[in-house]
Amino acid sequence: MPFVSRRARVAAALPQHDVTALLVTRPVNVRYLTGLSSSNAAVLVTADGEAVLATDSRYIETARRECADAGPIEARDVTGALAGRSGRVAIEAHDMSVAEYHRLLGDHPGLTPVSGLVEEVRTVKDEGEIEALRRACAITDDAFSQVVERIAPGVTEREVARWLESAMTELGAEKPAFDSIVASGPNGAIPHHSPSGRAIEPGDLVTMDFGARVDGYHADMTRTVAVGRPADWLRDLYELVRQAQRAGRRAVRTGATAHDLDAAARGVIEEAGHAEHFGHGLGHGVGLEIHELPFLGPGKTGRIDDRVPLTVEPGVYLPGRGGVRIEDTLVTRADGPELLTLTTKELLVL
Amino acid sequence: MPFVSRRARVAAALPQHDVTALLVTRPVNVRYLTGLSSSNAAVLVTADGEAVLATDSRYIETARRECADAGPIEARDVTGALAGRSGRVAIEAHDMSVAEYHRLLGDHPGLTPVSGLVEEVRTVKDEGEIEALRRACAITDDAFSQVVERIAPGVTEREVARWLESAMTELGAEKPAFDSIVASGPNGAIPHHSPSGRAIEPGDLVTMDFGARVDGYHADMTRTVAVGRPADWLRDLYELVRQAQRAGRRAVRTGATAHDLDAAARGVIEEAGHAEHFGHGLGHGVGLEIHELPFLGPGKTGRIDDRVPLTVEPGVYLPGRGGVRIEDTLVTRADGPELLTLTTKELLVL
Repeated sequence: MPFVSRRARVAAALPQHDVTALLVTRPVNVRYLTGLSSSNAAVLVTADGEAVLATDSRYIETARRECADAGPIEARDVTGALAGRSGRVAIEAHDMSVAEYHRLLGDHPGLTPVSGLVEEVRTVKDEGEIEALRRACAITDDAFSQVVERIAPGVTEREVARWLESAMTELGAEKPAFDSIVASGPNGAIPHHSPSGRAIEPGDLVTMDFGARVDGYHADMTRTVAVGRPADWLRDLYELVRQAQRAGRRAVRTGATAHDLDAAARGVIEEAGHAEHFGHGLGHGVGLEIHELPFLGPGKTGRIDDRVPLTVEPGVYLPGRGGVRIEDTLVTRADGPELLTLTTKELLVL
Repeated sequence: MPFVSRRARVAAALPQHDVTALLVTRPVNVRYLTGLSSSNAAVLVTADGEAVLATDSRYIETARRECADAGPIEARDVTGALAGRSGRVAIEAHDMSVAEYHRLLGDHPGLTPVSGLVEEVRTVKDEGEIEALRRACAITDDAFSQVVERIAPGVTEREVARWLESAMTELGAEKPAFDSIVASGPNGAIPHHSPSGRAIEPGDLVTMDFGARVDGYHADMTRTVAVGRPADWLRDLYELVRQAQRAGRRAVRTGATAHDLDAAARGVIEEAGHAEHFGHGLGHGVGLEIHELPFLGPGKTGRIDDRVPLTVEPGVYLPGRGGVRIEDTLVTRADGPELLTLTTKELLVL
């Protein structure tokens, strides 16, 4: 059971905030610390590592069966049932709403706002989490290889997105990890493009950013392919991003800073004169959320620990013309990163 | 453009809260009032019905193109950019986090917490919204009729869930409206059962609760079918729930209270001696969220307006033995409800 050791890591962080317990309300954090997925649950973790999980009648049977070590109790008002059970209780200030906080303060005036504590603990994964990510990435790879064969002129972005999502589901994903991006031709210039009815044309590049979710863990991969022979400038753009992505991956090591990782890839793009065409950070952590700590970008100071899954995803976007992004999910390891998305990064010309 | 009239309805509700503007931060409410789907956007609606939409560099091009009437401005700190633009500004207290509120209060000490204002306005739909729901329900119906032919002894709950979700995606849904429920045999006693690896057995009832999402609008339908000849007590249970569901649907009329609708169906179940086996409310509104106002249940006092889409979904759950739920999505109309989910409610014996 990984939950006891996860809660012990939360407990260890409490004294620095001068509290005796944390009232965890963010659903993804409740799941991380107890295993329970519920729209109405909270868990109080005390400084001795003990836990009390509160949930309502819809989920209490599941909680008693699967989360017995978290001492489940039944309550409709899950925060009200827990807020008074320790001396100095912190709440998750980045999650709890103003309305809920004001309601609780009436009976519990000492509640202390604290932000991001569990998210910090979640950054470093245990091997069970990494295995779930490995399976999610394998399904993502398999879906890509199934769908890439069907991409041809005349197919729309929306069709490609549907095929990817159906393939992942059929291959055993719980669901897509996020809304898939499929951007063809000039739409490739929009990093967060929503798949449209645009039909792919000969010579287009097509960027696909998608992933599978398995046991709550999110894969994230981007590949850009050519449909028919691409123009030379598109080939050059692809090669540039491929080089930048490789430089980023090679910089991934335990102890590197989030800034350094970003700079390794960004330097390649800047040197080619495209500094202003790479407007986002190099990547982000993945896990129970698709975007979580650490965030890689200019000026991000944190150091990357061991066993941290993250994405490396540089892109170059030329407004009105097109763009390229290439992204892997990998995990930091003491002896160099472990690549989880294994699809080739050679330019596929379909 | 429906957005101007939606914002006018929000503006009209501001004086009763003694504020001159509402800072809307809940993503679903921002989308409702401007059309923009973004993970970092906010809109300030002032008492004269004017709007200022703030979003960051990733979304500003889309906002300028598609939401010009909402006066888009680019900002990274979207709430900070808007909070000082009117005299007495309300925030969405049910959405804004304690951390964000405390951050803003430094520069804007007059911010007033208000809860649920936009959600109240969203209850009554315009015809464009109802049309999106109609299409979502049609896809839901079609997916059911495709998948029901494949259900047989030996098929697992998880397979049925995947088939339903793939079929909806292939039929043009953006995505499933929520995580599908497929509960077979004794699992039918758990209202929120997650699809498991349990293989369906001859004589089982199988409850499927699922729906498609189209243009952001959520369909919601439940059907319970028999795989092979069911035992007499299961047939009787099905017939009871079918009668209760019909009574609930027939009670749907503009001006009825949420309590009365619930009572019409619940009375049938209570009379059969199963009062304690129907532990949830009769239904809920649907729209940009899968669960939204109005909520139908005992003691819920609100009256139902015209053009309100809602679900009617009574169930009877016998712990350890099994259960039945039947659910439609329908819309209140002046001349009686419009049924959106058209799949038969006769017991299908597969």
